[in-house]
Amino acid sequence: MRIALDAMGGDKAPDVIIAGALESLEFLDQDDELILVGPQDVVNQHMSCPRRYKSRVHIVDAPEVIAMDEPPVDSLRKKPKSSIAILAKLGKTHEADAVISAGNTGACVAAFQMRMRNLPNVNRPGIAVTFPTFGGPVTICDVGANISCKPINLYQYSVMASIQAEHLLGIKSPRIGIMSIGQEEAKGNEIVKKARDLIKSDPNLNFIGNIEGRDIFKGICDVVACEGFVGNVMLKLTEGAVDGLFKAIKHELMQEKLGLGLALKFKPIMKRIYQKYDYNEYGGAPLLGVNGTAFICHGSSVERTIKNAVIIAKKHHTLKINDKIMDSLSHSSVGTTDVQTN
Amino acid sequence: MRIALDAMGGDKAPDVIIAGALESLEFLDQDDELILVGPQDVVNQHMSCPRRYKSRVHIVDAPEVIAMDEPPVDSLRKKPKSSIAILAKLGKTHEADAVISAGNTGACVAAFQMRMRNLPNVNRPGIAVTFPTFGGPVTICDVGANISCKPINLYQYSVMASIQAEHLLGIKSPRIGIMSIGQEEAKGNEIVKKARDLIKSDPNLNFIGNIEGRDIFKGICDVVACEGFVGNVMLKLTEGAVDGLFKAIKHELMQEKLGLGLALKFKPIMKRIYQKYDYNEYGGAPLLGVNGTAFICHGSSVERTIKNAVIIAKKHHTLKINDKIMDSLSHSSVGTTDVQTN
Repeated sequence: MRIALDAMGGDKAPDVIIAGALESLEFLDQDDELILVGPQDVVNQHMSCPRRYKSRVHIVDAPEVIAMDEPPVDSLRKKPKSSIAILAKLGKTHEADAVISAGNTGACVAAFQMRMRNLPNVNRPGIAVTFPTFGGPVTICDVGANISCKPINLYQYSVMASIQAEHLLGIKSPRIGIMSIGQEEAKGNEIVKKARDLIKSDPNLNFIGNIEGRDIFKGICDVVACEGFVGNVMLKLTEGAVDGLFKAIKHELMQEKLGLGLALKFKPIMKRIYQKYDYNEYGGAPLLGVNGTAFICHGSSVERTIKNAVIIAKKHHTLKINDKIMDSLSHSSVGTTDVQTN
Repeated sequence: MRIALDAMGGDKAPDVIIAGALESLEFLDQDDELILVGPQDVVNQHMSCPRRYKSRVHIVDAPEVIAMDEPPVDSLRKKPKSSIAILAKLGKTHEADAVISAGNTGACVAAFQMRMRNLPNVNRPGIAVTFPTFGGPVTICDVGANISCKPINLYQYSVMASIQAEHLLGIKSPRIGIMSIGQEEAKGNEIVKKARDLIKSDPNLNFIGNIEGRDIFKGICDVVACEGFVGNVMLKLTEGAVDGLFKAIKHELMQEKLGLGLALKFKPIMKRIYQKYDYNEYGGAPLLGVNGTAFICHGSSVERTIKNAVIIAKKHHTLKINDKIMDSLSHSSVGTTDVQTN
């Protein structure tokens, strides 16, 4: 298969993107190929491709670059030759079987949606991030693709993220929760309440009901449906809380009499925790619901993130996750439009 | 002053509520009095009040109790003699200068709003929780009083929480952020964008713009305005993330060769962190914008939480936070109704 990467996307592009992509080749099959999308000269300049891989790595020229903080839709209009726009085009024409970017998330979502279009019956795509937690991996959808969420979107996020958790992570009949502000049925805003009724009405879903913020880390569910705004805040808040806590621990360790010694002993433990509960393990998050395999990575992605994103994107494509989503939604008793809120 | 407490509110009521309340007396003035609201016989049975305090502790009978998971408005209607309903009545009639409950949050919000009414010019009250973080305390409003938020509410939360941070926590000209999904101006949903314009237009506010979830722990702002749904998820998510991380650390410590020894050494550090970054320190969260001093505590409050809530409620009342809110809103150039979304 052919996997295309946005060589210019992310805080550390193009170096870590290109290096991570090349690293992934070791884990791919002999007939898998990579396409690096970016200004040809820049990509060439930053790439030192081992000879054995040369025939499997291609460059597609994209002379323009969308910066991380540019307004998504505007920048796509102004820069039709940007790496993100060209990447989406490769996804649309099937010149690439999977596309990956660690660039401007808003621009990626807009480009992938506009170019690649949605799968049949999908109302709005959603980004499905997998959180590694002490209670096991939890897949959260959506974390920012869609900030004007309707009940039908939350229902479809449950269906799509559940299929992903089952097939990509091997979780049988994933337990689905809907993010709310209390476990009782009466809790939540109108969108959540209506979405809950839709999810509940689908006998193919293993729905456990409302969950609260703290439940994410308790191992009580495998999939969480939430609005993109809420999911985005959750994702970044968790990142900040973990970083802040580690800082606090480090600070307190250094206050001890034997602080440095204790800190040294504690270091490998912190490292192991970082490794186990590091979202870089999962590489990137698929934009579920678009007609193709599209992965969006964190702006601060490192080589390992990109390598893992390539490997997981391949798995996503090979396992035909999209076929399973189409099949499930076409047999769903829940409609595809949102009559309740229109 | 007279401070009334819901003796039946919280997971560990009535024991910890009564004990915490009695503990607080040591930190109050000689003419301060406590009113315990609950079924008279139950409160009497669980109270062992030192003789020197007897004249300062009163019981107001409230034979009914609203459970933590009852639907708020329904339960208030069905149980007019519940401790929460009677508490709100004491707040309304000024028989109590401050009211405190660790009971059903929704019922507290509904009762305090309905009985005590809003301060002049306040559109909707909001719960303002103070997060202790490595970067300093951050006051977040709203965390769940209002889940159908309008721009004017977010503006007023900024004003009210800023006054609280300045006077209660001693933070000069608190830096205010609005919770969004990116720091750029273009990011956020419609409510956030409109609220940002309102906050920006008020020259008395020290507004720093959009913040993201991770920024809460970075020390870049002192006050965060957010929708009640989002704030509630944030509050509980942080709780869960910290608990989950400590569990993970404990687990990893025990995997070490000298695990138990290391765990023992690490214990006081964890304890210190728990103390420093424990929301119990701040006791409870005021429902800002109601006409009176009303504090809502976490359902899992312990004695220390209740003791601190009493002390902080007294400070809140003594510092005349509500007068400052009224003064600020009456001089605000921003209206009190939400023409933009109506």
